[in-house]
Amino acid sequence: MDTAVTTANKIDLAALKYKTVNLVVFGHGNVGDAFLDQLFEKKESLLQRKSLEIHVVAIANSTRILFNEKGTTASWRSDKLTHGVPYSIDSILAFVETHQLENLIAVDNTADAAFTKQYEKLIANGFHIVSSNKHKNTAPWKEYSALRKLLNGHEKEYLYETNVGAGLPLIDTIKLLHQSGENITRIRGVFSGSLSYIFNEFSERNEKFSAILNNAIVNGFTEPDPREDLCGMDVARKLLILARELDLEVELDDVEVQNLIPKAVRALDKTTFLKNLTHLDTSFFIKKKNLKKGNVLRYVADLHGDLSKVDGGKLTVSLQETPKSSMLGQLKGSDSIFEIYTESYGSSPIVIQGAGAGASVTARGVFGDVLRISHKL
Amino acid sequence: MDTAVTTANKIDLAALKYKTVNLVVFGHGNVGDAFLDQLFEKKESLLQRKSLEIHVVAIANSTRILFNEKGTTASWRSDKLTHGVPYSIDSILAFVETHQLENLIAVDNTADAAFTKQYEKLIANGFHIVSSNKHKNTAPWKEYSALRKLLNGHEKEYLYETNVGAGLPLIDTIKLLHQSGENITRIRGVFSGSLSYIFNEFSERNEKFSAILNNAIVNGFTEPDPREDLCGMDVARKLLILARELDLEVELDDVEVQNLIPKAVRALDKTTFLKNLTHLDTSFFIKKKNLKKGNVLRYVADLHGDLSKVDGGKLTVSLQETPKSSMLGQLKGSDSIFEIYTESYGSSPIVIQGAGAGASVTARGVFGDVLRISHKL
Repeated sequence: MDTAVTTANKIDLAALKYKTVNLVVFGHGNVGDAFLDQLFEKKESLLQRKSLEIHVVAIANSTRILFNEKGTTASWRSDKLTHGVPYSIDSILAFVETHQLENLIAVDNTADAAFTKQYEKLIANGFHIVSSNKHKNTAPWKEYSALRKLLNGHEKEYLYETNVGAGLPLIDTIKLLHQSGENITRIRGVFSGSLSYIFNEFSERNEKFSAILNNAIVNGFTEPDPREDLCGMDVARKLLILARELDLEVELDDVEVQNLIPKAVRALDKTTFLKNLTHLDTSFFIKKKNLKKGNVLRYVADLHGDLSKVDGGKLTVSLQETPKSSMLGQLKGSDSIFEIYTESYGSSPIVIQGAGAGASVTARGVFGDVLRISHKL
Repeated sequence: MDTAVTTANKIDLAALKYKTVNLVVFGHGNVGDAFLDQLFEKKESLLQRKSLEIHVVAIANSTRILFNEKGTTASWRSDKLTHGVPYSIDSILAFVETHQLENLIAVDNTADAAFTKQYEKLIANGFHIVSSNKHKNTAPWKEYSALRKLLNGHEKEYLYETNVGAGLPLIDTIKLLHQSGENITRIRGVFSGSLSYIFNEFSERNEKFSAILNNAIVNGFTEPDPREDLCGMDVARKLLILARELDLEVELDDVEVQNLIPKAVRALDKTTFLKNLTHLDTSFFIKKKNLKKGNVLRYVADLHGDLSKVDGGKLTVSLQETPKSSMLGQLKGSDSIFEIYTESYGSSPIVIQGAGAGASVTARGVFGDVLRISHKL
């Protein structure tokens, strides 16, 4: 009987064991680039050890895309130069349909607010989403909650562990604690690697604020225009994302943010601002001089209030003085720190600390999210 | 046409949306008890908010079981007194088959080594496993790796986040980092809440070791016989579990453990030992006296060496002196601390700190694992 089976009819049992996941990757800047490198490096080992075949079937930036239904290779950079084409979301949907690709994950490593408007279309057409882009989670509540309903309806996942604390295990931890009924009573910490570095150094050293800030800029610890860090909005976004994980119905406007940029220099163009950093020195000198002995400055995000009510949370982001002997006071370098206070854990919080920014650790976090979804498929 | 549909044929669309997960819970000691309380408290909200119906279809201790195919209720304690029956694993298998129960999770909250021998049978018969019991993961490598093969073959999950650091997000973090190709170069920390408390207090206070130890016993921070903590084997087990997550092929015997119990009192019966705690004072007094200025004592687990090779890891568990200004040196109360060093994170590790023991936080961690699996089903 066996001999009657033709080659064409034979089933490849080895292939049956494998699960193929198809990725469409948007964005190949710092994070996207590092993510693709990490993925291609680990591809073979995931296949061998986890029977998981990850195909990157498309790589796009804002203008062009490289398609390969069998999976692009590590030579995608040069391939994209020769084979990259303009695209729309519809042409991607047509591509996955033509090739009957399943187990789809769209990976958003752009920082583009406009692109997140495409999530709904992707989800409705079979995609799970992994994103290092914070914009969707800080969109107005109506859009935020509508997306979650859509995800439920289509039984799709949307993971964004890197939105807060890069690769640190923060969002998943908070999500699981909350779902399993642990009463989270407060979340507090230093959420920004650049502001961590600036105030850790400024509190320690006998140097002007402008010198410390300049050092941070030179070392690439800040955005090209450091006012994007100093205005506090990035920290506010992160705090909002965590608050919403607790089912608090809050908007970005609800976050009370202390802007660290003196009014006089807010409107300057970037070049002029960078030339006039010494304008910041006086106010920060006074703040440092007024510190109680043994205290240091930290730019702290704090979610407090009555977190059991959907409108009971208070979200504040501000420069605070804190004892040098506290966990926050002991922070060093550009580390982030997150303190999660809960009922069961009592007065001492769960503390998660480490590099909370950087392309490499963020990419690793994105990779982790891709694996989480892949294991579920 | 619609009017021809009889009531009996009508599909309950609301019910279709729900996913029912069936739990068989073994062990209702401290952790098991807290777990069941937490579960019954959160049951309704999971149904409403996550469309997830968790049925505890059986609750067992070592001798008797309470069955209810529709799910036991919060009154299980009194029900078990009247309706509990003797059981075997086979009778549980017959029960789930008779009632055609699917989405099965066996939850092991016993501390019983012998019971973990049942995992294979449960897995082969359709159960996922969630366990706070450490014994399976510290079994000989042959048994350990055979279980993993069995899990793969049956596409079943085995989660045990609480084996190390109770509810702290440790094992999942290490697993994801490792799978996504991050080179973990070292894991170090204070893994035991009781030994954390004892040495934090002993380093700080001007009191005899026996007084500190007695205080820990009275406050319930140690096992009834504190030698179970002081021998270091519990910490060794935890270190072994983490090492194996990195695919290191190591056995419990490979862990170099410093036993903190003086030889003279190792063989004493429990009551005599507890009456003679002062026998421990001299050796610890000398250790404290010999500390360099600014250093403190910590009982440290350390996984180091060349972790890229399956036999390259060194596992040591010992009393060490460490600067008071270091993360380990600043530890307070009965907190555990874990430092994870990786290539991308550079010289400053990911640090996870908090209550690493206790029935309530362990139960919450078990609940988290149950949710993780439920979300995948």
